Amino acid sequence: MQIAIVLYDSFTALDAVGPYETLGRLPGAQTVFVAEHTGPVRADTGNLALMADRTLAEVPNPDIVVVPGGPGQIPQMDNEALLGWLRAADRSSTWTTSVCTGSLLLAAAGLLDGRRATSHWLALDLLKRYGAEPTGERVVFDGKYVTAAGVSSGIDMGLTLLGRIAGDERAQAVQLMTEYDPQPPYDAGSPQKAPAHLVEEFRTTVTLR
Amino acid sequence: MQIAIVLYDSFTALDAVGPYETLGRLPGAQTVFVAEHTGPVRADTGNLALMADRTLAEVPNPDIVVVPGGPGQIPQMDNEALLGWLRAADRSSTWTTSVCTGSLLLAAAGLLDGRRATSHWLALDLLKRYGAEPTGERVVFDGKYVTAAGVSSGIDMGLTLLGRIAGDERAQAVQLMTEYDPQPPYDAGSPQKAPAHLVEEFRTTVTLR
Repeated sequence: MQIAIVLYDSFTALDAVGPYETLGRLPGAQTVFVAEHTGPVRADTGNLALMADRTLAEVPNPDIVVVPGGPGQIPQMDNEALLGWLRAADRSSTWTTSVCTGSLLLAAAGLLDGRRATSHWLALDLLKRYGAEPTGERVVFDGKYVTAAGVSSGIDMGLTLLGRIAGDERAQAVQLMTEYDPQPPYDAGSPQKAPAHLVEEFRTTVTLR
Repeated sequence: MQIAIVLYDSFTALDAVGPYETLGRLPGAQTVFVAEHTGPVRADTGNLALMADRTLAEVPNPDIVVVPGGPGQIPQMDNEALLGWLRAADRSSTWTTSVCTGSLLLAAAGLLDGRRATSHWLALDLLKRYGAEPTGERVVFDGKYVTAAGVSSGIDMGLTLLGRIAGDERAQAVQLMTEYDPQPPYDAGSPQKAPAHLVEEFRTTVTLR
């Protein structure tokens, strides 16, 4: 089973690495990082690059597609090279997945029309404009489409999908080895829980399109 | 403020990316990925490489040192090039930190003698043999030394240290933007919680030294 994780300039690193570190432990699976061109692809901070080991063209039929988000998603929404690859890969994929604003790319490719889906909390309205039916859940399954909320939710998505494919025990083993027993020092991880002025500040300053 | 995240062959990617995505959002900080040589450094699965943008020698005095773990830690425990750099960097660092078995490298460098520290749950006994005083906590502060438990705990460590340095509000903002509102599909993230046979299986099959 081949898992393709898509990279593009200014993606958010944890969006990609969360599913890689969990779903990527699927027995017998081979994870491959893909981008338009091989070589280093810089994440949104500019301080980290992940290597794309294969071009999109070299990986036409992955079993699982994982699309991370990040501010770099904005120009990608008009990038037919990527959108066309997503459409084509989706035709033969078993699972098509995203983390964070990666779902906007799936939606822009026309793959989430009328489907229940999620995204970064700041992107839910935009996701609706692109034809999906946003939900407030952290991980959303609609048929073979699995979308996750912002950044860190890719870990929950990866474990959930791993359990669905390989069984609970395998997913629990990965949870144990990654010691995923989260103890956040604050309870500010969603717009419902965070201080209201922070939510408002991001709502007024962040543009996703 | 400069944050150096150390890479070496067969590190665990999430160990490094968790602190990068949280602590790395420290206002005014510059995060740099360092290794003995610049260029791609492959993580433990073989399926992902992160770029080391600078050599260890080029970054002699980071304010914050972050050492990830991973199976590749084993040969590094005898690598004087790395251990010597850790000792030297630690002399001027404000914070010296680790995730997972990265604490074994700090201990092998002699930096955790008699200090309270943690590591991956499978490594706590070994950490003790290297002179530290292991605790079962997820994030442990002892003076300027901050150690985190396995893999995913680097996110909690990063947020906690970010709050300590830049204040609670900044850390909450990062938690909100990374939507770190964890909802693991299982409750198997520690040896106390996971199915006993899985814990036993890993205890008998994993060698860290």
